[in-house]
Amino acid sequence: MLSEELIHSHHQPRPFVKMNQKIRVTVWGENIHEWSHEAVRKHYPQGMHAYIAQGLNEADDIVANTATLQEPEHGLTEEVLANTDVLTWWGHCAHAQVDDAIVARVKARVLQGMGLLVLHSGHYSKIFQALLGTSCSLTWREAGELERMWVCNPGHPITRGLDTYFEIPEEEMYGEPFGIPTPDEQVFISWFQGGEVFRSGATWKRGNGKIFYFRPGHETYPTYHIDEVKLVLKNAVRWARPEGLWVDTCPNVPVEKAPEKIVPRGESVH
Amino acid sequence: MLSEELIHSHHQPRPFVKMNQKIRVTVWGENIHEWSHEAVRKHYPQGMHAYIAQGLNEADDIVANTATLQEPEHGLTEEVLANTDVLTWWGHCAHAQVDDAIVARVKARVLQGMGLLVLHSGHYSKIFQALLGTSCSLTWREAGELERMWVCNPGHPITRGLDTYFEIPEEEMYGEPFGIPTPDEQVFISWFQGGEVFRSGATWKRGNGKIFYFRPGHETYPTYHIDEVKLVLKNAVRWARPEGLWVDTCPNVPVEKAPEKIVPRGESVH
Amino acid sequence: MLSEELIHSHHQPRPFVKMNQKIRVTVWGENIHEWSHEAVRKHYPQGMHAYIAQGLNEADDIVANTATLQEPEHGLTEEVLANTDVLTWWGHCAHAQVDDAIVARVKARVLQGMGLLVLHSGHYSKIFQALLGTSCSLTWREAGELERMWVCNPGHPITRGLDTYFEIPEEEMYGEPFGIPTPDEQVFISWFQGGEVFRSGATWKRGNGKIFYFRPGHETYPTYHIDEVKLVLKNAVRWARPEGLWVDTCPNVPVEKAPEKIVPRGESVH
Amino acid sequence: MLSEELIHSHHQPRPFVKMNQKIRVTVWGENIHEWSHEAVRKHYPQGMHAYIAQGLNEADDIVANTATLQEPEHGLTEEVLANTDVLTWWGHCAHAQVDDAIVARVKARVLQGMGLLVLHSGHYSKIFQALLGTSCSLTWREAGELERMWVCNPGHPITRGLDTYFEIPEEEMYGEPFGIPTPDEQVFISWFQGGEVFRSGATWKRGNGKIFYFRPGHETYPTYHIDEVKLVLKNAVRWARPEGLWVDTCPNVPVEKAPEKIVPRGESVH
Repeated sequence: MLSEELIHSHHQPRPFVKMNQKIRVTVWGENIHEWSHEAVRKHYPQGMHAYIAQGLNEADDIVANTATLQEPEHGLTEEVLANTDVLTWWGHCAHAQVDDAIVARVKARVLQGMGLLVLHSGHYSKIFQALLGTSCSLTWREAGELERMWVCNPGHPITRGLDTYFEIPEEEMYGEPFGIPTPDEQVFISWFQGGEVFRSGATWKRGNGKIFYFRPGHETYPTYHIDEVKLVLKNAVRWARPEGLWVDTCPNVPVEKAPEKIVPRGESVH
Repeated sequence: MLSEELIHSHHQPRPFVKMNQKIRVTVWGENIHEWSHEAVRKHYPQGMHAYIAQGLNEADDIVANTATLQEPEHGLTEEVLANTDVLTWWGHCAHAQVDDAIVARVKARVLQGMGLLVLHSGHYSKIFQALLGTSCSLTWREAGELERMWVCNPGHPITRGLDTYFEIPEEEMYGEPFGIPTPDEQVFISWFQGGEVFRSGATWKRGNGKIFYFRPGHETYPTYHIDEVKLVLKNAVRWARPEGLWVDTCPNVPVEKAPEKIVPRGESVH
Repeated sequence: MLSEELIHSHHQPRPFVKMNQKIRVTVWGENIHEWSHEAVRKHYPQGMHAYIAQGLNEADDIVANTATLQEPEHGLTEEVLANTDVLTWWGHCAHAQVDDAIVARVKARVLQGMGLLVLHSGHYSKIFQALLGTSCSLTWREAGELERMWVCNPGHPITRGLDTYFEIPEEEMYGEPFGIPTPDEQVFISWFQGGEVFRSGATWKRGNGKIFYFRPGHETYPTYHIDEVKLVLKNAVRWARPEGLWVDTCPNVPVEKAPEKIVPRGESVH
Repeated sequence: MLSEELIHSHHQPRPFVKMNQKIRVTVWGENIHEWSHEAVRKHYPQGMHAYIAQGLNEADDIVANTATLQEPEHGLTEEVLANTDVLTWWGHCAHAQVDDAIVARVKARVLQGMGLLVLHSGHYSKIFQALLGTSCSLTWREAGELERMWVCNPGHPITRGLDTYFEIPEEEMYGEPFGIPTPDEQVFISWFQGGEVFRSGATWKRGNGKIFYFRPGHETYPTYHIDEVKLVLKNAVRWARPEGLWVDTCPNVPVEKAPEKIVPRGESVH
């Protein structure tokens, strides 16, 4: 009745998670500002996604590829997602251009167990709103001010290797109120030079998918080149890797398969 | 700077909640099975929604009206929602026929603070899935078996007036796993004659809207005529009434309005 | 079987909560610094607790009395607690002098449904640690710096009447990491002039007791004379009032009282 | 500033967690019924703890030792705890005999990051109550009835290798209401032959310690010899192993170490 190798229920098989393989990451990028604005291109001449992936690939246990809005199916085919352990999402000006069918596909894969890192302006992406169920609104100011990221739990795997805080010299400000459901864990809170605060790192679980929102990453600053930012993303990928996968359905349990013997009563519309 | 009467922020005014008025409930019904199946009509000759509303209107502090799928805008116009404190939702075979624009409107109103009671097969409604962010799947069997509803917290306002459990002689079975995010509070768990269990009463908050899922209510049984079921719905309406309302937006905070004086730096794509 | 007046289970009666009466608050004060330090006495010549109670008594729907460490049973007799809807707790240098038996009594009453507001240095009180189960540690600095309290949810009943933030000109700094379990709701986050942030207002539920931690209130500053602070405390008292009361026990359910007929099997150590 | 090897903050060093070593488990047993009651001894002639440890030691990646109430310091010395990744706790009739100082020591180690599995009647242990902050009460009946353990999330690492449910032919009944704070995740719910239900597997986090409560394990039945029970315990040990360790304190941050330059103001009682 028990098997560690083949996990099987009377509903559906559950794929086995191999914990000793490299973590397969797909870095998704909206990939628009980089080509329309020199202010962005000078920091990320190959596109922001390329540098986010490069930072992750510094780690021996991670292999990161990229996908962008402009590719067929936004680069997020069934096959790509089936071979992705953790997806990172950066978008800003083109959230509405993301196909609803692809959003539904990504959501289904997160519920099954794929990790999801939502970056900066991705707070307003369809996929983040669809998984959290709230507005994900915030206040904002683009003035290149100092952001100080405070660690709320120095023992959390996402903060491993960090001091009690780190600073980003120039960033966009995001301020409270942040329209999210209460996070499972608060990992970072930001102090901004202009006087605001923000819940800059937070986790949720939806289905078996672990979700981490990480605030920094405005396109006109070299944020993804900062050592601490790269470290947090590597830590977060490790934290978000699937621990179990489950494809849920809504199965009927016929009377003859009920654990206790029962005699059907009443009427039915079926 | 302070006013209890007119609550005002630099973002937007917040409507004042009057706690001494009657609670205004809109009971939404899919309203299909009642006319296509004698098995349903015999229990609910005027439609299920009519009897759910009637049960609520037994209370002095509640005034309940109804709305159905077939009405223009499904009966859920901007005006109706603006005058609804708590919405109840029963649907089964026609979830897909509910207009996405109306779902978005209901969701926005829940986030603002309107309470939502999701009933029985409403677990698969667009609005419940959109607010919770998960599949809301479960297992099921239609055999008219005994359901025993256990109270998980006898001090919870939704269970006021109940004994430690109550029984429903004939109900459809819903079983675990139930594809939901962890509830804020577990209010009921069901024991089924056929051997299953289910998280039959649970709460969540999204934005300022309080959400309660209540499992019983299959269309071929007279569930909404049962005293304890009617009591739970009345209690839940009282629990879910808005305690505060907030229409969130995503406002820019210009540099000159920053709480601390800052000098803008860096570039912008705006 | 149902009664709204007398709520009764086969375990124990549950007292009825009368929502139209005034909320009975007991303001507990350690009451030491006020007499040993002129820096404290000049702001609170009758003791801090007296002014906290006075601020609450400005409201028509609240009646606040005080209790202090020095009274018999610290002023928290069984009778006092039985007639308290919401208890507020301020302590600093004498946490260890609070009798464990009184802590256990207060804890039992919170689990039953009494609200609890824990103020400032009360983060290290026995009662807060006993209810949260964690260290409740933080970092701190006493330099009279500016604290800006940001509202995380403008629709929360505790923030009613506030703007998006308010400022306290001189306060002690408390900084992250704050050793707490994830709050049910984040209500305030503080920005400090010296560069730190803190989860300054947060809620939890333990049993049926609602708990609110509110950071400001260092003894050498006139914090409890500030309008916004007084408003938050009034709001929090209303939010924390009991919605239901339940005295739990660990009752045996004898075989003959099992809902389903069973025949005892196996052996027993009883 | 960054180091993956030596994790260091200006507060304190954080020990590095080595994920490729065997998980070190200490199985704690009250160890009384086994010697006083033949009904227990016949199932567990070497003591219940010996068989729980033996089941865990079947796994290649776990090394389990035992500790009992009767040993000096209950077998839970500073050294033993410092070398324990996950502690399991079974107690029943002698909760009150556990030294408060040892409870405080175990609690501190859990907050630091050690995992804790609380078994069956351990629901009323001092350590469980101290970490959860609630009564942990329940209803109960000792009649050797059938318990059916339903899996609430087939993708959870604790349920790996299980079917949708498993049965224990004879067990003590525990029923709702269960006096716990809302779990982080609901893993199992039990159906009992006598008609009750119970939240039989649930998780919480306190500090960095992961806590799992697992209901089965009454001393007069051979529960810990059942394959599925042994599998759940192995899975739970893997799930509960530390992901990060942090020894928190309550450090002062002197004015000259504030991230932003400030000038001290106001008075002090220090």
